[in-house]
Amino acid sequence: MHFVKVHGAGNDFILLPDLNDTLELHPGLVQRLCAPHLGLGADGVIRLAPARSGVDADVFMDYWNADGSIAEMCGNGVRCVAKYVADRGLVTSDTVRVDTRGGVKAVEIITRGAGDLVERVRVDMGAPVVGKVDWPLDVNGETLNVTTLSMGNPHAVIEVDEVADEDLEPLGRRLQEHEAFPDGTNVELITVDDRSVVRGRIWERGVGETMASGTGASAMAAAAHLLGLADRETRVVLPGGALDVEWTETTLQITGPAAEVASGELDEAWLTTIR
Amino acid sequence: MHFVKVHGAGNDFILLPDLNDTLELHPGLVQRLCAPHLGLGADGVIRLAPARSGVDADVFMDYWNADGSIAEMCGNGVRCVAKYVADRGLVTSDTVRVDTRGGVKAVEIITRGAGDLVERVRVDMGAPVVGKVDWPLDVNGETLNVTTLSMGNPHAVIEVDEVADEDLEPLGRRLQEHEAFPDGTNVELITVDDRSVVRGRIWERGVGETMASGTGASAMAAAAHLLGLADRETRVVLPGGALDVEWTETTLQITGPAAEVASGELDEAWLTTIR
Repeated sequence: MHFVKVHGAGNDFILLPDLNDTLELHPGLVQRLCAPHLGLGADGVIRLAPARSGVDADVFMDYWNADGSIAEMCGNGVRCVAKYVADRGLVTSDTVRVDTRGGVKAVEIITRGAGDLVERVRVDMGAPVVGKVDWPLDVNGETLNVTTLSMGNPHAVIEVDEVADEDLEPLGRRLQEHEAFPDGTNVELITVDDRSVVRGRIWERGVGETMASGTGASAMAAAAHLLGLADRETRVVLPGGALDVEWTETTLQITGPAAEVASGELDEAWLTTIR
Repeated sequence: MHFVKVHGAGNDFILLPDLNDTLELHPGLVQRLCAPHLGLGADGVIRLAPARSGVDADVFMDYWNADGSIAEMCGNGVRCVAKYVADRGLVTSDTVRVDTRGGVKAVEIITRGAGDLVERVRVDMGAPVVGKVDWPLDVNGETLNVTTLSMGNPHAVIEVDEVADEDLEPLGRRLQEHEAFPDGTNVELITVDDRSVVRGRIWERGVGETMASGTGASAMAAAAHLLGLADRETRVVLPGGALDVEWTETTLQITGPAAEVASGELDEAWLTTIR
């Protein structure tokens, strides 16, 4: 089984090219592939398949989370898919139409480097749905000013003096379980250095702190603008890398890196040990 | 650059075959290769080179820790090296002589599976140097009975009712910094179900909890025997897998699995981004 290890700003995936649509993924295989130490380790598996019947797109991104569940969309994953198909000449246009369970995404190739290989890719994340801005919330007796938004999933963004000094884990756990968020929430901390630079950290609902998140970066940039701290076009700097976010009148776009780390073959004897 | 991803009981390595001895590793490259998310992710890198000048061995295991430092020996790594050279027919004997910075290790192929591929390998870890047995130690006002041993590196083993119920992190941190261990110590918790089965968890000095450790498994088995709980030949069950340990009059041997997960090529464009 051929694989390609890719990442977008530190959000990493095992891409399994399956353009003949013959590969049957199952949760046990996805979990083992994504397991650190015992497998290859990644945040998710992307099976790259032909666009589904009746869908006008170049490829289908069959996205699985590391826990073996299926996800609708992944902003960092879709950029890596565009790089893969463009680098291999499977699509020659600078716009790659990726079929996802969350709809067809038109992904744009922005810059290419040595060997004409793709370096930066833009993806449309859709417009944020704004909840409450600078909302004073009681969290274990302490008042925190929270800005809430939906990017298809819920986000709670808090401005702090210095993101690097914060203890994100206890705060993430408390907000995730807070009665104000009956479905839980992703939690983002931001520090705004300039109207064009938002530094942030992300606590992903059900996962913990991660290096990058497309919806998280979108929520951070939108919240920084709603709070009057940043312009509509700003760079979001995450532990895994930087993403450029532009919130227009109608939508929100992220431009960011897509990198290929390695490619090869999964060991056949090892695959037989997976149930 | 060709790579093979391997693991022994969940202790994982990026093996870089370099039998022409042309590859120059440096800490930055090792750190990036071992980084989860941004790299391939592993506990260490093994450059597989020709035996060093004047050394009578089949290959040299040039072992680097994930933090970019060099290590003398790694019991799980040396098993994976033996599997690699035996599976590819580079050595046809069932004993592979691996040159390490900790001396030449005679590693034995014990079982082969489908396709004659190596499954289990035995390595000589050397005899434990016993320190104190069942030593009552005051740890923040609580008395813990600790058995100390050296396997080239220091270990402190504690028997508990059920390893799964223990909170290893605070205990590991406290013992690592305890005045009784001026050089720090690895910390192992064990629960003995039967004289032939020791279940354990490992806190590695400077690393944290890990899935497996060859010297840790050795220390656990030896301590269980010294405490009168287990035979000289016992199975040590770790989070990453099981290792069979035999402590003879003269030495201590571990027999355990070696697995290959995948192999392929590191991306050239990605390698140029590493300093």
